[in-house]
Amino acid sequence: MYVHVNAATSADGKLSTRERRQVRISGDEDFARVDRLRAEYDGVLVGVGTVVADDPSLVRHDEAHRVAERGPDPTPPARVVADTRLRTPADAAILEGDPVTYLLHGETASAERRETLSAAGATLVPAGSGNDRVEFPAAFDALETHGVESLLVEGGGEVIFSLFEHDLVDRLSVFVGGTVIGGRQAPTLVDGRGFVDGFPELELEGVERLDEGVVLTWAVR
Amino acid sequence: MYVHVNAATSADGKLSTRERRQVRISGDEDFARVDRLRAEYDGVLVGVGTVVADDPSLVRHDEAHRVAERGPDPTPPARVVADTRLRTPADAAILEGDPVTYLLHGETASAERRETLSAAGATLVPAGSGNDRVEFPAAFDALETHGVESLLVEGGGEVIFSLFEHDLVDRLSVFVGGTVIGGRQAPTLVDGRGFVDGFPELELEGVERLDEGVVLTWAVR
Repeated sequence: MYVHVNAATSADGKLSTRERRQVRISGDEDFARVDRLRAEYDGVLVGVGTVVADDPSLVRHDEAHRVAERGPDPTPPARVVADTRLRTPADAAILEGDPVTYLLHGETASAERRETLSAAGATLVPAGSGNDRVEFPAAFDALETHGVESLLVEGGGEVIFSLFEHDLVDRLSVFVGGTVIGGRQAPTLVDGRGFVDGFPELELEGVERLDEGVVLTWAVR
Repeated sequence: MYVHVNAATSADGKLSTRERRQVRISGDEDFARVDRLRAEYDGVLVGVGTVVADDPSLVRHDEAHRVAERGPDPTPPARVVADTRLRTPADAAILEGDPVTYLLHGETASAERRETLSAAGATLVPAGSGNDRVEFPAAFDALETHGVESLLVEGGGEVIFSLFEHDLVDRLSVFVGGTVIGGRQAPTLVDGRGFVDGFPELELEGVERLDEGVVLTWAVR
């Protein structure tokens, strides 16, 4: 699986306020950049925390760019949610519309949630270990059997940490915008437990001024 | 008071690990940049959390650059610690050496700590309100009576939040380095309670590649 993490952060590395409320960090140029990026990947992945907090549809992408990349009548990017206990609401926007939605879940997800979300149109992908976490390497192997071989990851910080922890990230791009959010409780680009050694090392590939900020693109070494 | 906040963060906006252990984020080019910056300011300010965690001396600066800026035999940059309860250890490196060290403290600092730290060579600057916080506008007025009219602030995230909260920051520069630290508990560039509205707005003034990262310089609007 090729994994590209993309996010917009404040100048102090936050994804949203301590109340998990999104702040408009970037602008139209960055939105267009993200739409082009989505068009280049087989799927777009978010964590269930992002689904619950923001209810994104993840449908929007640059269709012309996708046709240019993949030829006429391409399938749209699949939606993928890392959702250990299947907390995605049955009426979530991410389950509406044409693109397939995969829910990567753990063993602890209840039979009732599995039935409800299958009925709501989700494709369930069991990827559990015993430890109440989505086991990412196994989940990605399962996604590849569905033809999803590249993912754009759009947050949040818990999922992104898990991916870095398992050495599964190939590229990171961050729009850093001209605002300060602050807060020791505010979600950041990479949350989770955090590293105390073996820090992932990045190589700066690109610096591009956009809107009122800058896009930093890093390759993971 | 002219206030310039400068820091080095990981690509995910962290100042150190969740254990408050510093990680080498930047390199020799950025160290030289910081030495030049220090030489341009009347003083260098940190929070007491940084003193306790890192025991910085804050003595190093680019002397040739200071002479070029201020003429022969300039006074070195003063050291300033925001230290409500005077927790700075009497044997802290920041009290050693020639430059004067100001400790901005609150009303709740004990008489015993005041005596100990005065005896250790610190210049105490009472700047308390009743609420167990250094009252920054008053503290800066007091520093100006000592001739300190510009400050380079080098962390940590609690002090930096307080300064943004009181609209006291004029400029922010951040070296963003090619490493990931992660961690929802790890100190970030701007911690504190965080903003939920009235977010400080920044204007991007400069983007400079340095070492393996990039320096972003922002003016506060």
